[in-house]
Amino acid sequence: MGFTSCRYRLTIEYDGTGYSGWQTQKNARSIQGTLIEAARDLFGADVDVQGAGRTDAGVHALAQVAHLDAPRRLPPQRLLFGLNDLLPAPINILKVEEAPAGFHARHSARGRSYLYLISRHRTAFGKRYVWWVKDDLDPGRMKASAEIFLGFHDFASFADKRIDKHLSTEVQIDRAEIIARSDMIVFRIAGSHFLWKMVRRLAGILVEAGRGNLSRTDIERLLVHASELPARCTAPPSGLYLAQVLYEGDRLAPVEIPPLPFFLR
Amino acid sequence: MGFTSCRYRLTIEYDGTGYSGWQTQKNARSIQGTLIEAARDLFGADVDVQGAGRTDAGVHALAQVAHLDAPRRLPPQRLLFGLNDLLPAPINILKVEEAPAGFHARHSARGRSYLYLISRHRTAFGKRYVWWVKDDLDPGRMKASAEIFLGFHDFASFADKRIDKHLSTEVQIDRAEIIARSDMIVFRIAGSHFLWKMVRRLAGILVEAGRGNLSRTDIERLLVHASELPARCTAPPSGLYLAQVLYEGDRLAPVEIPPLPFFLR
Repeated sequence: MGFTSCRYRLTIEYDGTGYSGWQTQKNARSIQGTLIEAARDLFGADVDVQGAGRTDAGVHALAQVAHLDAPRRLPPQRLLFGLNDLLPAPINILKVEEAPAGFHARHSARGRSYLYLISRHRTAFGKRYVWWVKDDLDPGRMKASAEIFLGFHDFASFADKRIDKHLSTEVQIDRAEIIARSDMIVFRIAGSHFLWKMVRRLAGILVEAGRGNLSRTDIERLLVHASELPARCTAPPSGLYLAQVLYEGDRLAPVEIPPLPFFLR
Repeated sequence: MGFTSCRYRLTIEYDGTGYSGWQTQKNARSIQGTLIEAARDLFGADVDVQGAGRTDAGVHALAQVAHLDAPRRLPPQRLLFGLNDLLPAPINILKVEEAPAGFHARHSARGRSYLYLISRHRTAFGKRYVWWVKDDLDPGRMKASAEIFLGFHDFASFADKRIDKHLSTEVQIDRAEIIARSDMIVFRIAGSHFLWKMVRRLAGILVEAGRGNLSRTDIERLLVHASELPARCTAPPSGLYLAQVLYEGDRLAPVEIPPLPFFLR
């Protein structure tokens, strides 16, 4: 009991637009830092918050998971309302639960799932939330290309070695799919873990495939030989959403993307 | 010909969040001012832009109409692409046409239609685009109350006399409806013209009716006797959208509001 009884599991959504990313940084407004400040205000004492995944500046989350180590117990609902009252609008706690024994948001995670939204049309409302690609994209080519990523591969071509030097570039991808709709193209990818900017580089390569600039063979080669091409094709952060963090026993949630509203067409 | 042949009719959508409103103001970033600047850059000469309706700071438009007087002719599509290339993302020209003879965006308008979105849930993504009302609202009471506004009434209680002193407070309302959905309540109102903050005050009064705080009789009374109550209930600008400007021969468009996306629930 004691310390571990004060660990809470938080599920958090955020609009990453105005933030330097998840991770606390000096002289920059981060999601983690903002959560820690709110929790300190609530408890009047030092509080630690650790997230399951580090999202980059401008990247959003629909369900980031974090654990919060509090100096004393509070009913989960009171913690939820208390934190949301203190947090700015772009950060919204969806759920608070007491963490099971031994739970660690990052170390206990078995997988992550991301969505990347590509819209065909400029709108006054969408720039923060999608990637506009004016060119015609061939969803069939994108689907076939996404399937190449499935399975266990070395994604070194999609990693930034300066940043991820301690992380294995061998990643198990369990799902890589393209959902094409009249208003947008959604790339959904789920896997064991993801390297820095990896999903944005995968999305960028798929868009090149959709434009007809890359063949299946070109993409297969990226998984075998190191290449700088994915870095040059990095998709913008605005379209990226951390959608789900999976723990022991969790199943990948179905993609639920209702039609975009009139103002995000 | 001559001068009038260089008048264009623009249909514009914008996210009003970061702007001081439609109208050009000193030391403030307005939609009109931003459009005029972009048009001046494009033509390399003075250009005038006049809108059909003045939206307030933070109010959005799905289809504001404006006329642009240009120093020379340009094909409408070139004007559209040229302006959009120069405009910031929150302002997006949807359509450019050569204006018919005698067309004036404001004087020729016969009616305006607005949408007001009320959401039941806080989300990380919605604060700029809806009004969150946590309380349970009774859509039946709101519908019955909205119908009171239909027809020709004196909306003096909903006007700000300091601002609108030259505008008649007698307004013809052609449509006033509540569309209730699981995720949000939409108030749609169409009429001859609207006074400053009038739609936001109507929305605020309807929410009070939905909360059970105002009866039909209370609301009927606001149309007969001057009252300060609507001013105190003014709804925030974030939920308000100028949806359509109607000219001779135009019909009110059907309300097309697909379900909100997962991130604006």
